Amino acid sequence: MKLKYLLLAILAFAVLSCNCKNESVSIIKTDVPERPAGQQSVIGLTSEPMQTVRIGVVGLGMRGEFAVQRLTFVPGAQITAICDIEPDRTQRSRQWLVDNGHQEPACFSGEQESWKGLCERDDVDLVYICTDWLNHANIGLYAMEHGKHTAIEVPAALNLEEIWALINTSERTRKHCMMLENCVYDFFEMNALAMAQKGLFGEIVHAEGSYNHNLDPFWDEYWHSWRLEYNKTHRGDVYPTHGIGPVCQALNIHRGDRMTTLVAMDTDAFNGPRIVESRGEEPCPDFKNGDVTCSLIRTVKGKTILIEHDVLTPRPYSRMYQLVGTDGYAAKYPVNQFCLRENLSAEANSIGKEKVLVGDAAKELQAQYNAAILTPELEALAKKVGGHGGMDFIMDYRLVYCLLNGLPLDMDVYDLAEWCCVSELSRISIENGCVPVEVPDFTRGEWDKVKGFTYAL
Amino acid sequence: MKLKYLLLAILAFAVLSCNCKNESVSIIKTDVPERPAGQQSVIGLTSEPMQTVRIGVVGLGMRGEFAVQRLTFVPGAQITAICDIEPDRTQRSRQWLVDNGHQEPACFSGEQESWKGLCERDDVDLVYICTDWLNHANIGLYAMEHGKHTAIEVPAALNLEEIWALINTSERTRKHCMMLENCVYDFFEMNALAMAQKGLFGEIVHAEGSYNHNLDPFWDEYWHSWRLEYNKTHRGDVYPTHGIGPVCQALNIHRGDRMTTLVAMDTDAFNGPRIVESRGEEPCPDFKNGDVTCSLIRTVKGKTILIEHDVLTPRPYSRMYQLVGTDGYAAKYPVNQFCLRENLSAEANSIGKEKVLVGDAAKELQAQYNAAILTPELEALAKKVGGHGGMDFIMDYRLVYCLLNGLPLDMDVYDLAEWCCVSELSRISIENGCVPVEVPDFTRGEWDKVKGFTYAL
Repeated sequence: MKLKYLLLAILAFAVLSCNCKNESVSIIKTDVPERPAGQQSVIGLTSEPMQTVRIGVVGLGMRGEFAVQRLTFVPGAQITAICDIEPDRTQRSRQWLVDNGHQEPACFSGEQESWKGLCERDDVDLVYICTDWLNHANIGLYAMEHGKHTAIEVPAALNLEEIWALINTSERTRKHCMMLENCVYDFFEMNALAMAQKGLFGEIVHAEGSYNHNLDPFWDEYWHSWRLEYNKTHRGDVYPTHGIGPVCQALNIHRGDRMTTLVAMDTDAFNGPRIVESRGEEPCPDFKNGDVTCSLIRTVKGKTILIEHDVLTPRPYSRMYQLVGTDGYAAKYPVNQFCLRENLSAEANSIGKEKVLVGDAAKELQAQYNAAILTPELEALAKKVGGHGGMDFIMDYRLVYCLLNGLPLDMDVYDLAEWCCVSELSRISIENGCVPVEVPDFTRGEWDKVKGFTYAL
Repeated sequence: MKLKYLLLAILAFAVLSCNCKNESVSIIKTDVPERPAGQQSVIGLTSEPMQTVRIGVVGLGMRGEFAVQRLTFVPGAQITAICDIEPDRTQRSRQWLVDNGHQEPACFSGEQESWKGLCERDDVDLVYICTDWLNHANIGLYAMEHGKHTAIEVPAALNLEEIWALINTSERTRKHCMMLENCVYDFFEMNALAMAQKGLFGEIVHAEGSYNHNLDPFWDEYWHSWRLEYNKTHRGDVYPTHGIGPVCQALNIHRGDRMTTLVAMDTDAFNGPRIVESRGEEPCPDFKNGDVTCSLIRTVKGKTILIEHDVLTPRPYSRMYQLVGTDGYAAKYPVNQFCLRENLSAEANSIGKEKVLVGDAAKELQAQYNAAILTPELEALAKKVGGHGGMDFIMDYRLVYCLLNGLPLDMDVYDLAEWCCVSELSRISIENGCVPVEVPDFTRGEWDKVKGFTYAL
């Protein structure tokens, strides 16, 4: 059932002078399945407005338990069903709902595939998936096949096979398939995006993002330590979406621009085997995930993106969020920094020196820009309910708001595809000696149809 | 006279499953000229101790004028000759030397090749080269051929042809050929290196460096704006040495490890043509240097290096210095940050949570580590004389100190080669669609002979 991909054959024997340029030597292309006849893209997909969004939550562990609680604060949302393989988790969430005056949810538990029952119910409009990564796409597919919209935690898909399956299923069933990428709703990122959209930074030419987070103290938080297992057995950037999501929005990916080429490089696995050993587990000299993985991506319009992944070394948490524009700059880690041109006099033979804004000056600038979706009421509620400082709540709020009003969601299945594909494409690049890999056009020809990222209001 | 390089031919037609790994698809290899029979490497090269190091300085513009002044404070150094194409510059430095009680230097000026006369003098031991980039290697070669040691400003060589010429000439003439990479003497970098060498960060697995500096207000400082011209006509990271030098020392490059593979990616040239236009010059739609260039490099020991170059967008100055180790982390921009493990209890099933040190905690840590070469007297003198906060003086001091005492220099011609090669290798990678390029073993087999970077004392 593994996706096959084609290694482009290139016979190149040439002695080139140092002046050679743009001679494409080789790029690995993966299969792009043809869109079935009659099937259409889901760009701008809307569904009928609803009075209430009835939600079934699958997976009540690290992310799901709090999602259930958070969703009860979202106007128009109602939890009608919950599911976890562990009965005590299902029971705990059920109890919380009842204790807090909410409707008794239908409960599913005890089996690997208990979630199927939830997906099959008539009183569920949206299946909200917070399981381990390995079950994300499968449940999403089943939910759509059973007429449900689906929202899937990050990463929603682990490889190109899962990505194309989600795309094709969303396109065929006309059901929303959104990835629950919360970092695009972080206040800083939304603020910087608003600045970028106002042209404050000129044209964004380069952007960076990462997931640099020492997970060593957290492996046991995951059910049967599945996340450590996943890192043991997978090379490449296995968790790219927090880094790439916000910068893709700023770069208008599949809304006027498109990622074309990815190259990646990783370190050997230095800490992986050591961490396994520290846990008293069977030695794993063949631990796959390198301590640090870097991916570089280029777009049709000549922009570049750098994405990093490091969950194995002790370092300050960083998502490395950075926008580099022709006239300005924004960066978040380790401190908020903005940079704008300080224009010199006309005689200065220059387009401008830079002026760095940090601390209060940065705050002053930030106060002048606001994401269109962020009303003072929403901001206050988000900060009260919380979830990574409020961004999780804003994500849920927007998802439900758009469904209630029959609007296109902020993120579609192509965002999901583009943000998740870094995992397998980086693995392919690395395992083939850091060669360039073509990033598929997941929209199959429609990346330039919409001009610029916007929130539907 | 351009160096030719061989494009490795690979015919690959294969349908691989997603489990494929380490199938090398293609890598561009450049020519590695065989070491002439009888010629030996200059690893650990020493020369006879001297009473005084008699110095001829070539190029008295942006860097050279102050170098002349700085060198007069270095114990054992004497300026015996100076040269610049512009007579007024030569005159100004001559006057400064005389006014400050130093020996009248021999002066060379007025011709493109006035420097030849300086290199041919008997009272010069060391030719110190601060010209524009295009003349760096040529003058260095001529100096060595005329029996002089040579120290060359960054980048000492612009391409592989110049690099191999400098290596072969240094090996044949047994003359030192050091690049004047000052950033390895920055207090923070020396401090972090001392920590790394004490094992504070465990094993360094990944490192970063950059030259991100908006040069828009500075183009006219360069003689006939040569630096803008160079960026107009050259793609790739044309100025990598400040970023890569310090991290190569921390990674013990050609002292137990070796760079093997480089891949690079750049943005289109967005600001280049705009800057040319703002200066009222002839439009240059074919401006070569992208606004941002990123290079990834892998080593034999499975470490990685990320190098960035951006001199065309308004952003905070940054050399991005970062060391990522198995047990710790150091970073300099935009604020000093260290991270060490905060060990959990033995039962915690973990090798340790991270503890971030900034501000006073960072200073406290720094105070416990000192570069072996940095005596309080030297530090005080360096800060008094100045030059980028003192690092330029320490660089000059170390160069002269090692020559006086017949010690190996801190940086040899292979450092020069490794740090400069990023320019041409990144260009080759980029112009061929971001393919991997092999980093030559400039030591031709001796990269593992010395174990670890040290200063000779």
